[in-house]
Amino acid sequence: MLLILLNKESKEPLYRQIVHRIAQMIESGKLQNDEMLPPTRRLAETLHVSRQTIVQAYEELWALGYLTSGSGSYTRVRNRMATVQKENRTEAGIDYERLIGTEKVKQLNQLIGRYQPAEAAGKQLIDMSVMNLDSSVFPVKEFQKSLNKVFRDYPDSTLNYGETAGYIKLREWISKRMRDHSTDVFPGEIILTNGISQGFELILKLFTSPGDTVFTESPGYRIANNLMKLHQLNIIEIPLNESGADLDQLEEGIKKCLKTGIIPKLFYTVPSFQNPTGILTSQKHRERLISIGNRYSLPIIEDSFEEEITYFDKKTLPIKSMDVEQIVFYLGTFSKVLFPGIRVGWIAGEKNCIEQMSILKKMSYMSGNTLTHAALYEFCSSGHYEGFLKKVNRHYAAKLKKAIHLMEEHIPEKGCTWNRPTGGYLFWLKIKAGPERESELMKICDSNGVKVAAGSEFFLNNPDAVYLRICISSLSDTEIEKGIPLLGKAIREFLTRK
Amino acid sequence: MLLILLNKESKEPLYRQIVHRIAQMIESGKLQNDEMLPPTRRLAETLHVSRQTIVQAYEELWALGYLTSGSGSYTRVRNRMATVQKENRTEAGIDYERLIGTEKVKQLNQLIGRYQPAEAAGKQLIDMSVMNLDSSVFPVKEFQKSLNKVFRDYPDSTLNYGETAGYIKLREWISKRMRDHSTDVFPGEIILTNGISQGFELILKLFTSPGDTVFTESPGYRIANNLMKLHQLNIIEIPLNESGADLDQLEEGIKKCLKTGIIPKLFYTVPSFQNPTGILTSQKHRERLISIGNRYSLPIIEDSFEEEITYFDKKTLPIKSMDVEQIVFYLGTFSKVLFPGIRVGWIAGEKNCIEQMSILKKMSYMSGNTLTHAALYEFCSSGHYEGFLKKVNRHYAAKLKKAIHLMEEHIPEKGCTWNRPTGGYLFWLKIKAGPERESELMKICDSNGVKVAAGSEFFLNNPDAVYLRICISSLSDTEIEKGIPLLGKAIREFLTRK
Repeated sequence: MLLILLNKESKEPLYRQIVHRIAQMIESGKLQNDEMLPPTRRLAETLHVSRQTIVQAYEELWALGYLTSGSGSYTRVRNRMATVQKENRTEAGIDYERLIGTEKVKQLNQLIGRYQPAEAAGKQLIDMSVMNLDSSVFPVKEFQKSLNKVFRDYPDSTLNYGETAGYIKLREWISKRMRDHSTDVFPGEIILTNGISQGFELILKLFTSPGDTVFTESPGYRIANNLMKLHQLNIIEIPLNESGADLDQLEEGIKKCLKTGIIPKLFYTVPSFQNPTGILTSQKHRERLISIGNRYSLPIIEDSFEEEITYFDKKTLPIKSMDVEQIVFYLGTFSKVLFPGIRVGWIAGEKNCIEQMSILKKMSYMSGNTLTHAALYEFCSSGHYEGFLKKVNRHYAAKLKKAIHLMEEHIPEKGCTWNRPTGGYLFWLKIKAGPERESELMKICDSNGVKVAAGSEFFLNNPDAVYLRICISSLSDTEIEKGIPLLGKAIREFLTRK
Repeated sequence: MLLILLNKESKEPLYRQIVHRIAQMIESGKLQNDEMLPPTRRLAETLHVSRQTIVQAYEELWALGYLTSGSGSYTRVRNRMATVQKENRTEAGIDYERLIGTEKVKQLNQLIGRYQPAEAAGKQLIDMSVMNLDSSVFPVKEFQKSLNKVFRDYPDSTLNYGETAGYIKLREWISKRMRDHSTDVFPGEIILTNGISQGFELILKLFTSPGDTVFTESPGYRIANNLMKLHQLNIIEIPLNESGADLDQLEEGIKKCLKTGIIPKLFYTVPSFQNPTGILTSQKHRERLISIGNRYSLPIIEDSFEEEITYFDKKTLPIKSMDVEQIVFYLGTFSKVLFPGIRVGWIAGEKNCIEQMSILKKMSYMSGNTLTHAALYEFCSSGHYEGFLKKVNRHYAAKLKKAIHLMEEHIPEKGCTWNRPTGGYLFWLKIKAGPERESELMKICDSNGVKVAAGSEFFLNNPDAVYLRICISSLSDTEIEKGIPLLGKAIREFLTRK
């Protein structure tokens, strides 16, 4: 019998869900070559769907080469060339794990994260673990108009290879925008990237070699941590306190390196609504950080992914705005203000370095998606950006306010502390318990119907307690109203258990 | 006096050209802080443009923060924060060349290529050096329709983060398409990339570590060569003869490695219309190659960037189509059939490896541009792909035929040999002369009004003669008719000089 779990509330049509599940079973070998599939009528009954749905799914699977229809009406798993000819083979194939190296394969698998989504057993969890955005506020119509304007006015130049550093007019717009934030950057000091992570990767490619020493915040952004690991760097974690990275420890760490002849390559920081803690560092903190960077000639990587998403506080100037000595590399993105699907971010920094990153970018990337860049330029330059930024801020501010209120009401005060963010969409909860009990809490959350991000995912080493990251960005009001009380219940249950 | 060269035939408006040149001068320090720009009237006279053009350029430069207007009507270069405050500074800044390492900086600069476009001295060269495509055959209207369909039918799911491996429906379409080419690949064995080069980079990231040994064709694709250099690999070049890579040498090379305990990691090959030589390897050559790969457990990277662009010959099956043992990684792209601006390619290969590349992709890339993927899927699945492939093939076949004819007529037979391609858009010329005379030939081509790609760019070591690569893809018929006779004249001039 075929065990297929369907999600009838999903936007994905039922027949597509069936296609995916059966395709997976064939690809993974759970369904063998030549194995017979159940007749459409029987499968329809088992899954409580119409027979037409099964027929449609089988047809699609046949078109995709998974199935074959032989004599009679039987549908079987298709013999793939590889397997058909296997009997005749005398040669060995490749042991990829050996070729790649067992250590590297292990490392890659660890990057995926400790807590994989369990096969959702028909149950709908409220997912507070991911940082997806709420598509209901996406400026879909306006962006579509901008794209059509590009097609109407200048399609040719945007469909061929573009400039490696990215569409110049968009870089000019970004340069103006950054000057509005008191940050003086020329278009030639900007390179467009596929998002923050590609930006950080380009910086690592340029500045580091395996074994080099870098500093980063702890806890910190997982993708950044993983990128540093993949570059085989010696990563020194600087712990965060309530006001941001502990700069005394940073300074001490730099001194220690220099004393032993090691030149640290960079400090990676997220000064605004840090991921995962949501901390916004103060102007003073930023001033001291840049003065440390200057004193010790340490490049500072300012990941500003949520800079524009401030609701309840006055704007803090970017570290880059104080960067007289050109030691700061600012990573920006459009993902959080508009939508992430277009994949456009940028690096702003010292001109020669930007040009060298341009060469590196060209090698693996040729040019960016100029069509998207041009549409984004049209979108921004026609004034849509400012308007949507306001809309987005209003939207998430209301959600965050509601969430803060509910957190105050439902999260137990004893044994649990959390930050009150003034922007962004993240809460960071510290729960007084041995870190070894994390998976226990994760299970309790699960069984209460909420999914959260495990704090240990954001540490390179073991944390000192159990932490959770809550993200409200993709939740509806109803989900927030339902989810936070459930989370409170789960935490209470966990705390009483010990 | 401001020395600005304007190209009045360019599509770029004159005022934008002026903006660029002045911006460059300011960014590079050729124009100093506070330096006064000439009055609009005088600059207009010098450049033979209207005064309004200069006013518009100055306004744009002012908006971009390059200029300031002080008292009176004088326009000056704006003092940047960095420089203003420099007087107060006591600290050192960063010596980036030292931080990055002199060797690495040198290597990066070498990657740019030996022959940089000389500041075009008002002269329009016929550019046969680049592999841009002819935008007049781009399916602009149809792609626009496909994009609008996505916006109308399912914008939400395509504007948020997408699947790391890329939009599933497009992967399914590719899997079907590959089966039309007798290549049996499941959607789960495909990962979408930003183009061939990102695909190759992912493979290098997964399979290699610094110091590893790889094989490649010589001469070969520059970006691939550069990527291997950046990964600090030990690159063994396998020379090409008329029928493709010399497989005896490849086998010998592998044996030599294995004897000394070195496991070579891969062989990179472009079997169809190789860049730069245009060679299409035979079915027999492909069969022998895969049998070598199988015998020695050597992964074969099949870069098929021009596979679909066959005009005068019968289709040759991809190496991947014979890949019983899952040792071939097929790199595909939409750039050459549709247009390169959308940046979509793919890797098809062994499932576990594809999944591991997916993890690597996620770290620097999050997800692809789902909006573009979805539009491309709509474009392809509505039958446009086949239609445009035919159109594109007709278009370039006619150009190539014309070019072959003119080459036969105008390229001197004595001292010069070249291939007759049956697809693609490349000619590879070997000119009997010491390789040290290459730059001499480049200059002669230049002064005859044609720009070609220097053959030495495609070798990792020194070639044995002077080579040129001619690409006709972006040329109009008139340019081909004018350019090839000029090239012939240049070569004759060069040959008589020695």
